[in-house]
Amino acid sequence: MEFSSKLLENAVYEMSQLPGIGKRTALRLVLHLLKRPEAQTQNLSKALSKLREEVNFCTSCHNISDAELCEICASPKRDATTICVVEDIRDVMAIENTSQYRGLYHVLGGKISPMEGMGPQDLNIAPLIEKVKAGGVDELIFALSSTMEGDTTNFYIYKQLEGVGIKTSTIARGISVGDELEYADEVTLGRSILNRVPFETSIKAN
Amino acid sequence: MEFSSKLLENAVYEMSQLPGIGKRTALRLVLHLLKRPEAQTQNLSKALSKLREEVNFCTSCHNISDAELCEICASPKRDATTICVVEDIRDVMAIENTSQYRGLYHVLGGKISPMEGMGPQDLNIAPLIEKVKAGGVDELIFALSSTMEGDTTNFYIYKQLEGVGIKTSTIARGISVGDELEYADEVTLGRSILNRVPFETSIKAN
Repeated sequence: MEFSSKLLENAVYEMSQLPGIGKRTALRLVLHLLKRPEAQTQNLSKALSKLREEVNFCTSCHNISDAELCEICASPKRDATTICVVEDIRDVMAIENTSQYRGLYHVLGGKISPMEGMGPQDLNIAPLIEKVKAGGVDELIFALSSTMEGDTTNFYIYKQLEGVGIKTSTIARGISVGDELEYADEVTLGRSILNRVPFETSIKAN
Repeated sequence: MEFSSKLLENAVYEMSQLPGIGKRTALRLVLHLLKRPEAQTQNLSKALSKLREEVNFCTSCHNISDAELCEICASPKRDATTICVVEDIRDVMAIENTSQYRGLYHVLGGKISPMEGMGPQDLNIAPLIEKVKAGGVDELIFALSSTMEGDTTNFYIYKQLEGVGIKTSTIARGISVGDELEYADEVTLGRSILNRVPFETSIKAN
């Protein structure tokens, strides 16, 4: 792609460094900004720069937070004896959206993945083990994605906690609410039969 | 979507103002930036802000340019008697990529579109008419998209130049090179038969 301006070329290059944004999309986005009032570009530019400079992670759960402790960890209404282990802050947002969980979280920041060069030391695993060993936690809920990497990470943490005497669980895998059985994949359908739930429990959940 | 941090919420909001980027994608992009070195975010932020502040348009063709006249308009090697009228600077880049055109361009900045509130006065049409009337231009090539709005814009410019005695043409519409006839739409196929080209010409183009 040949650009008529260095300034434009540079802006498109930087934009195309974002994941899933190629050169053409980057050019479209940058030209859009040029057609809009200057304030829009400056607001975007400042918001990104300010976030990157001042971003802060909750010292307990590693969620992004403006305060030292995030709102969830700081709330007296939350049940501090249960910790839900997630990959990413997006998972915290997704679970919070359900309004079904009153415990705390622990954000790992990824999964163990030798292919991507992510080892246990690159994740917030050590502080989790420390927190659990310090006492006061009764149950750890693993809510990582059910991939090879997610399972490896769950198992690694599980092994680290051997002998600590804590309850561990994983979120239920099964057929999505509203889905037709005939279109479900075999593994999920198999698991949903193995891990069937007493009918009375399923009535209560609705 | 509930955010655990105002800084994060603000960055996601500004990112989601870009076309085709929803809240979820914006969150993914912003979290990606947080995982990368701070320099990447600062480079993006500065490049956008600098482009918006210092962007300059060629005084003759209205292409984005760092100098007062863009490289194409300033080049003595280009044929100043032919002007190709395009919507957008992306069209200039696309035509330049073909290496088949040695004339100059004129970037309108859009099409006449009453639906979007774009009238002739919102586009760079007046300077084009002026330039042509000042003399020295023999041919105007319309290379707008072949939509209702593109055709309207072509016709509007054509009408403005009545009596000026200038040659006008539009780029050829036809079956794409390499495409199968059976999948072509009827209008395009019809036009490609009406506007057929002497066989000798088509051999020369290959």
